[in-house]
Amino acid sequence: MTNSEKSNQMANAIRFLSADAVEKANSGHPGLPMGAADIATVLFTRFLKFDPKAPHWPDRDRFVLSAGHGSMLLYSLLYLTGYEDMTIDQIENFRQLGSRTAGHPEYGHAAGIETTTGPLGQGLANSVGMALSERIMNAHFGDDLVDHHTYVIVGDGCLMEGISQEAIALAGHLRLNKLIVFWDHNNISIDGPVSLADNTDQCARVEASGWNSISVDGHDQDAIAAAIEKAKKSDKPTFIACKTTIGFGAPTKAGTNKVHGSPLGAEELAGARKALGWTSEPFVVPADILDEWRAAGQRSNEEHKAWEERLAEADPNIRSEWNRRLSGDLPDNFEATISAYKKKLSEDKPKVATRKASEMVLEVINGVIPETIGGSADLTGSNNTKTSQTTNITPEDYGQRYVHYGIREHGMAAAMNGIALHGGLIPYSGTFLTFSDYARGAMRLSSLMGIRVVYVMTHDSIGLGEDGPTHQPVEHLAALRAIPNNMVFRPADVVETAECWELALKSRKTPSTIALTRQNLPTVRTEHVEENRCAYGAYELAAASGKAEVTIFATGSEVEIALAARLQLEQDGHPTRVVSVPCFELFEQTSDEYKRVLLGDAPVKVAVEAAIRMGWDRFIGTDGIFVGMTGFGASGPIEALYEHFGITANHIVAAAEAKLK
Amino acid sequence: MTNSEKSNQMANAIRFLSADAVEKANSGHPGLPMGAADIATVLFTRFLKFDPKAPHWPDRDRFVLSAGHGSMLLYSLLYLTGYEDMTIDQIENFRQLGSRTAGHPEYGHAAGIETTTGPLGQGLANSVGMALSERIMNAHFGDDLVDHHTYVIVGDGCLMEGISQEAIALAGHLRLNKLIVFWDHNNISIDGPVSLADNTDQCARVEASGWNSISVDGHDQDAIAAAIEKAKKSDKPTFIACKTTIGFGAPTKAGTNKVHGSPLGAEELAGARKALGWTSEPFVVPADILDEWRAAGQRSNEEHKAWEERLAEADPNIRSEWNRRLSGDLPDNFEATISAYKKKLSEDKPKVATRKASEMVLEVINGVIPETIGGSADLTGSNNTKTSQTTNITPEDYGQRYVHYGIREHGMAAAMNGIALHGGLIPYSGTFLTFSDYARGAMRLSSLMGIRVVYVMTHDSIGLGEDGPTHQPVEHLAALRAIPNNMVFRPADVVETAECWELALKSRKTPSTIALTRQNLPTVRTEHVEENRCAYGAYELAAASGKAEVTIFATGSEVEIALAARLQLEQDGHPTRVVSVPCFELFEQTSDEYKRVLLGDAPVKVAVEAAIRMGWDRFIGTDGIFVGMTGFGASGPIEALYEHFGITANHIVAAAEAKLK
Repeated sequence: MTNSEKSNQMANAIRFLSADAVEKANSGHPGLPMGAADIATVLFTRFLKFDPKAPHWPDRDRFVLSAGHGSMLLYSLLYLTGYEDMTIDQIENFRQLGSRTAGHPEYGHAAGIETTTGPLGQGLANSVGMALSERIMNAHFGDDLVDHHTYVIVGDGCLMEGISQEAIALAGHLRLNKLIVFWDHNNISIDGPVSLADNTDQCARVEASGWNSISVDGHDQDAIAAAIEKAKKSDKPTFIACKTTIGFGAPTKAGTNKVHGSPLGAEELAGARKALGWTSEPFVVPADILDEWRAAGQRSNEEHKAWEERLAEADPNIRSEWNRRLSGDLPDNFEATISAYKKKLSEDKPKVATRKASEMVLEVINGVIPETIGGSADLTGSNNTKTSQTTNITPEDYGQRYVHYGIREHGMAAAMNGIALHGGLIPYSGTFLTFSDYARGAMRLSSLMGIRVVYVMTHDSIGLGEDGPTHQPVEHLAALRAIPNNMVFRPADVVETAECWELALKSRKTPSTIALTRQNLPTVRTEHVEENRCAYGAYELAAASGKAEVTIFATGSEVEIALAARLQLEQDGHPTRVVSVPCFELFEQTSDEYKRVLLGDAPVKVAVEAAIRMGWDRFIGTDGIFVGMTGFGASGPIEALYEHFGITANHIVAAAEAKLK
Repeated sequence: MTNSEKSNQMANAIRFLSADAVEKANSGHPGLPMGAADIATVLFTRFLKFDPKAPHWPDRDRFVLSAGHGSMLLYSLLYLTGYEDMTIDQIENFRQLGSRTAGHPEYGHAAGIETTTGPLGQGLANSVGMALSERIMNAHFGDDLVDHHTYVIVGDGCLMEGISQEAIALAGHLRLNKLIVFWDHNNISIDGPVSLADNTDQCARVEASGWNSISVDGHDQDAIAAAIEKAKKSDKPTFIACKTTIGFGAPTKAGTNKVHGSPLGAEELAGARKALGWTSEPFVVPADILDEWRAAGQRSNEEHKAWEERLAEADPNIRSEWNRRLSGDLPDNFEATISAYKKKLSEDKPKVATRKASEMVLEVINGVIPETIGGSADLTGSNNTKTSQTTNITPEDYGQRYVHYGIREHGMAAAMNGIALHGGLIPYSGTFLTFSDYARGAMRLSSLMGIRVVYVMTHDSIGLGEDGPTHQPVEHLAALRAIPNNMVFRPADVVETAECWELALKSRKTPSTIALTRQNLPTVRTEHVEENRCAYGAYELAAASGKAEVTIFATGSEVEIALAARLQLEQDGHPTRVVSVPCFELFEQTSDEYKRVLLGDAPVKVAVEAAIRMGWDRFIGTDGIFVGMTGFGASGPIEALYEHFGITANHIVAAAEAKLK
């Protein structure tokens, strides 16, 4: 080992800020920050391109701490390099309510936190999306504006999670050579040695998916630096296996699971101070060491300045497009384009599946929004996510707009999070709604981070027919609606599909799931209105002929059935309204008065959705009639299934009339 | 290629039964059955130990079609080898409502379907649980009773799903050398060539996790046989990469994605008949070929008979224990043991976290039920799933009862499904409740299959404190309750924990999730009753002092808060009941009268749960008061969080009294 005294002490600054913060909070994970401090010191003092005074500089290198439990590593780095909102006070308030220094890094809490991590493997998969975005944006805007690396620290846990395989395979396939992953190879997980549960040769594993691997002593800073130099020259993504000691410096607990997720304790912490020659009080970094760190935080100043100059000198049209895309604003003509298309749809009244409607709308959207990046988890022809503008992104041509994510729903969702976080691009991609289960870990993080990711989820009910119960979602609408800050749309026809897409794209701080049918549906919105009616979440689609005796609430494919039931009920002398409910979440955001009027006071309220009842009591009350599913579906032709499960106009009419009697 | 004419025709019988069934259904996947027919023919005619007349023979080899979309391969095999409930009529009714031949293989629909597959990767991970069970049962009962192999067919999709990595790594770690996986390596996925999304060297990948790999021509039956012979001699799990042509025999579509998931069409099907020399009408297998297949179905008769003789000759105690365990019955003393322990708990009144209570109860359960197999996804000390009886299962000693599943929630859940399906063992294992998101794909299948798997999900709310919103479940209780046939328990104290565990273990056809706290809770069930009160799903824990003005419904850690609020309300002159609601699903199974009385008619109804409202309207109505979460949690000490989010007795009292005014 050839680390200089200074570089050792710089790493020790991370170690003791981290261990002291955990100690004070009496909660947290000192092991990783102490073990990975040398890696982080090398990266942040010699390689990372970043500007703590301008943390959102678009061409900065991205740093992702996928092993998010080691959050104090990141917070220490942000403090040491001079991010203004990461004060020593924040460090001292680690894990306290209202601090920026949450138990795990939370995107939006402080500048320099590029993504929320903690659920293992997510950060690695985010980073694939970030590194891909860099290549796409580079292809769109050139080396002058986009030329940066994505660095990631993963732990053993990240690599055991299945999502890591999806991420590794996708990155290798896309040959993302500016992605550099450090494996904090400390052989320890919570239960004990990793060998309790794993014997995988991780280097061989990543090489099998087209990566480089380099193995180094994770406490030898020059060796780490040499590995990074080598990685930067590679034409493949690089995996640097850094052999480390978890809790490096702790006299009796280092190298054991005792230092993973608990404070060291006063005695052990004092012992670590002695072992590493760290004489400062808690939360004090010696001035010379802090100066060195702050200087490291200024390393990229010139580079940043030169970049700003290049942007200023760029073609004004390119600059303006760059600024718009990085701001997240949609093109000025977006709303008018959607409105015009809605008008055409109202007139044409096509009878198509909403997945097809989505494709038609996407054809329009992709024509006016050049930053959408489409994709599918190997269901392109079923999800209808590909349009004339979206050609496959390949290692030979990153300047395109379609990703074949492979049969990797979880990795896809997390990569989309990375794309959205990177900036400049809007990701959307598809799978079957039932496989939202596979992607849920990442979908939750889209919601928690509040980022614009659009999930296109087709085959949204028993209406998919013969594939049977494994493929038929019944609980998924409820389960997705349950996630806070997640907009779940279920449009009823082409016009609603256009409106839902408009809302999804305009929702800058909320991911969206658009649930779409396999089966054809008639156009029910046959009169054009400028207003986006889906923006209310629920709205009256068909009024009653008199004072309403029945209100039928429905979504998606069941709106057609509700309308048929209404006709029959009206014929039978029962004035009936139909309310379309494309988005529960948006309905909750309307005024109390709007809600009151919309819910109405018809004596009979019916909800129809080819899914479970959960959530519908909000509309129909606990004594309302629900027509839908009570359990899993079955394999059979669609007509047989709707009849079998009683999701029919006749059933609605009979139930409503029985109650009216 | 050296296949005999006969063996070719035997494989062709699979091909045409499959293609003809898909053609008639006008829906389905002919590509895999046609491509993998040679593999299946070799396996079923030369190796598989099975008895179609006794399909549940416990020592049969297990065959799992992980690539479940190729279901006609399996149905054809079951018909050809003479499973009685798989008639030609069933084959002709492929994908029709009510048939045994659903779009994807559904466990329970027909004998010989060992597990439900379709969601990709699940079957592979199930098979790891099955192969592990074989080793465990072998260690418990010896070679005379347990000595079989687990064979699996996986497709490219299975291998791209992250769950496959979790399964592969776990199987390699556990050195499950009787697990033999055939990779139907046809280079085609739905979107087109696999190279659109993947370049992984799958053989190198599995070798990195301690497997053998063997590559063969998947249409050369002798080569496949030689590979199986070799695999059976190995001390590692074996991966046989079988290079196949998807839709083998289809003149223009073979080898392309056109044959993956659509009927061939009349012309192509006729062409395939011509190309392969198959002259029979649809659904007709030439008598000589059918005879050969039926003979293959009898191959293991002698072996089965010998096995039955060994069982008959076994020590009566061993035989009786074997029969009990295979029947799924619990030991006779189980109920009495739990009841006695409940009595002790009511008297001792420990104040412990319910995760600790679960450990205490498990200590009792594992003492009387020798077939439980515990585990955790690397959170053993947090999930409290290990007891004095459960030592680690290792390749050196399979006769133990604890699995370190690694940080692999999805693979763990699917492996548990495999253990439950294998028979003779009852799997339970833990992770944090929030990471049920990672396991959900497999948890849904536990429910759909209706099998006894127990998910121990600790850290079940903001009560976990500092780890913050990534680790704090808020929507997970609702999302899990949404899954049909899934019992979600949230016990309030040690006694309820014992009752919930009893119910989980007695539920033979329903998986259970037990949500448990990190924080300590007082014993609220301080008076012993024999009856399992949690069996009602919801019950009155504390009666009102008079005609109830307020009913408070609560679960888990919030029952304590509800009881405190009740005391205050009673003091303020408002008779108040508290209803504990440990399991929504069981409440729904009670009589209408029980429900009516339990819900009661108090003018104010309050529900308290440190989670979202979804599902609670069922108890409190849409105008009821809900005290819980409306969004994500936060990082901070538990006391600060409960106060911050207003989940306090004071808040309940204030809200109830405001409404009473």
